[in-house]
Amino acid sequence: MTEIKAKAIFLNEYPAGMPQPSQFRLRDIDVPALEDGEMLCRSVWMSVDPYMRGRMRPEVKSYIPPFSLDAPLEGGVVSQVMESNIQGYEPGDYVVDFLGGWKSHYISKGERTQKVDPNMAPLSAYLGVLGMPGLTAWAGVTQILKPKEGETMFVSGAAGAVGSVVCQLGKAKGCRVIASAGSPEKCAWLENEAGVDVALNYKDYKNAGELTKALAQAAPKGVDCYFENVGGMHLEAALNCIGFGGRMALCGMISVYNNTELEAGPPNLVNMIGRGVMARGFIVSEYIDKAMEFAMEVAPLLAAGKIKFQETKYDGLEKAPDAFIGLFSGENMGKAVIRVGPDTV
Amino acid sequence: MTEIKAKAIFLNEYPAGMPQPSQFRLRDIDVPALEDGEMLCRSVWMSVDPYMRGRMRPEVKSYIPPFSLDAPLEGGVVSQVMESNIQGYEPGDYVVDFLGGWKSHYISKGERTQKVDPNMAPLSAYLGVLGMPGLTAWAGVTQILKPKEGETMFVSGAAGAVGSVVCQLGKAKGCRVIASAGSPEKCAWLENEAGVDVALNYKDYKNAGELTKALAQAAPKGVDCYFENVGGMHLEAALNCIGFGGRMALCGMISVYNNTELEAGPPNLVNMIGRGVMARGFIVSEYIDKAMEFAMEVAPLLAAGKIKFQETKYDGLEKAPDAFIGLFSGENMGKAVIRVGPDTV
Repeated sequence: MTEIKAKAIFLNEYPAGMPQPSQFRLRDIDVPALEDGEMLCRSVWMSVDPYMRGRMRPEVKSYIPPFSLDAPLEGGVVSQVMESNIQGYEPGDYVVDFLGGWKSHYISKGERTQKVDPNMAPLSAYLGVLGMPGLTAWAGVTQILKPKEGETMFVSGAAGAVGSVVCQLGKAKGCRVIASAGSPEKCAWLENEAGVDVALNYKDYKNAGELTKALAQAAPKGVDCYFENVGGMHLEAALNCIGFGGRMALCGMISVYNNTELEAGPPNLVNMIGRGVMARGFIVSEYIDKAMEFAMEVAPLLAAGKIKFQETKYDGLEKAPDAFIGLFSGENMGKAVIRVGPDTV
Repeated sequence: MTEIKAKAIFLNEYPAGMPQPSQFRLRDIDVPALEDGEMLCRSVWMSVDPYMRGRMRPEVKSYIPPFSLDAPLEGGVVSQVMESNIQGYEPGDYVVDFLGGWKSHYISKGERTQKVDPNMAPLSAYLGVLGMPGLTAWAGVTQILKPKEGETMFVSGAAGAVGSVVCQLGKAKGCRVIASAGSPEKCAWLENEAGVDVALNYKDYKNAGELTKALAQAAPKGVDCYFENVGGMHLEAALNCIGFGGRMALCGMISVYNNTELEAGPPNLVNMIGRGVMARGFIVSEYIDKAMEFAMEVAPLLAAGKIKFQETKYDGLEKAPDAFIGLFSGENMGKAVIRVGPDTV
């Protein structure tokens, strides 16, 4: 076995509020000898995603256990097999893995792993539009919102890895799509590249009342489908503009993830009653069994240029904490990915 | 045609905050001559229901138009046909009517009207367990919550016309049922007559944190189904205790109906995401086409004594405003009904 100098990122402490670079550290790690049923992988691209903030709150009950302070962080990664004692995986194969991230090399038992073809799409796309964020977007749209042609869809966090796919699926399904994002550049990309009907820069609106007015103007027939990534004033404005029989897919509330105190919820939830509104919180792992259905719908749209995507690329495993923190400051355009190693060696 | 001295209740002004008796007045009204396709009815029992408060807010968009200040109020009533120019309705027939209430006599075109049999159940029951509140309870349970045997159901406003039926349907479906109500007498009825597993007197708990502790203790495996009649700290406690895959039927939020300022929503909506929770607001009119299915499920349970109900009876049309105001002070036990005329004349 090759001598490997493996590195990984650990958490020094659980963040309170906005995560800080000093709370992460890069460490050397040992890579033990391979056993039967294991393979050695080297990371090529790794992912940072907002849901990881939830794994840094050990006091909150969630669908996935909190990160340990005594082990490397975990997350999505595209990697290449170096050695394999698992039938079906050969050295040189590329895989996407839900847990192998935040490490330069790691040993996998092949669980939560899918092989991917580097000739079908850029490898990093398997962390974004063709990966977990893409499946999240597709599941929220097709399994929860179920938009009909001619309906109006509102998407918060619309320039992000999930939101940008939601917007374009909405357009592909014949909806009027209103997008909200946090900079003129993001709004320009949404209108000019992703093809949304109206992009609102939410930083132009001081409160839920102002955002409600802008949304009502952009959605004169009301909002039929709301895809929630943000929470706070976005949810309140959506509840003000939601129409009879409206649906809301609750995917994330990034505005509250770093709060140290609980923030009050929207005062207008009662609108859900009179308007017969359904809201469904969800996590992508519920829909893992539909990954093939997702790929068969999204891959052709991607190939036809009907779904475009953006990436913000960071270079080097040591940059992963900055990329992660950037998720909450809004500085990444589209999917944030970190180059950990070369495509080929 | 008989000479009729008809009376009806009008609103003097729209209430701000808690409705006051002075905002209502009893007036004589004319009953015009019957035309073709009309029938004259005399009210026997009328209903007051929390949803009527929404019709007193002309500024809010809702599923039903606000009450006019220039016409009698409207609401559910059981009445007897006196004269009829509608084929199929004969003098002496009893009908339940969604809009004829708040009047001693009225002319109907037979719309939103069902004939009822006075020998099958007490007439007033067609305003409660066999009427709109019963259908509301049944729809929330069977069409939204879909409880499975062995699951835990939490019901707020549990001693009310809707909540008491929800609790007993939950028991009939094999659930552990935790009920919340606002007095020791209501809790005793729920535990001893309605057969719930635990009844919590919410007035014993100062805030959502205290109610959460009590609910968590009563529901050690978490809440699978929440039937929401109240809002405020009840919703917050339910969201704290809701389990993975939980469902919430949002039927009412009586705690906020008389607010003059918007009250903040629960700070823990984000729990819906990690726990994959579905919430559905609804109004009974969505399920009118299932009234027969409802009757076929609930009537046998009622006949078998598996669904019990309570009524608070007021005597005389002039008492209807007091009965209505009593909905918000919690002073009614079970369904509030007003005797407007004798069963037979």
